[in-house]
Amino acid sequence: MDDENTVFIGSKETMNYVMATMEQFNRGSDEIVIKARGRAISKAVDVAEITKNRFLETAEIIDIITDTEELEDEGGGTTNVSSIEITMENKK
Amino acid sequence: MDDENTVFIGSKETMNYVMATMEQFNRGSDEIVIKARGRAISKAVDVAEITKNRFLETAEIIDIITDTEELEDEGGGTTNVSSIEITMENKK
Repeated sequence: MDDENTVFIGSKETMNYVMATMEQFNRGSDEIVIKARGRAISKAVDVAEITKNRFLETAEIIDIITDTEELEDEGGGTTNVSSIEITMENKK
Repeated sequence: MDDENTVFIGSKETMNYVMATMEQFNRGSDEIVIKARGRAISKAVDVAEITKNRFLETAEIIDIITDTEELEDEGGGTTNVSSIEITMENKK
């Protein structure tokens, strides 16, 4: 799956990412992946839940996976951060 | 599954919940469920990832589900909050 079907969750308001997710589905994507790291993980779950409950009733969460990523910190060392990938499918 | 096999994520430090998860496994549980709501969802993912990566290599995440719960707010209305349940199994 390429980045065209992916929504990366950052520091903006939740509804920005709900809209981005809806745009992907409206462009005809059957599957989109919502990705987040660290504290944005909670927001990623909000985005998926709000999208399917309030905007697109034919959409479902079909897979959720988590992982641990190593990020380089400022001192040249590494920090572990959790990540999540939520796959949604529009079962229209 | 009863509450004995469940770890509820709250406002304490992440490692408290990792230890609580390890205690459940050490008592002989094959499966435990980590539950969280709202902002604590990110911490729940951290707890699962740290437990399997650093403390119990035979443990795996076997299921992750999300939901939306209605909570009563102070004014007597309701607020929606996302929730997560991460099921881990010790494949020892």
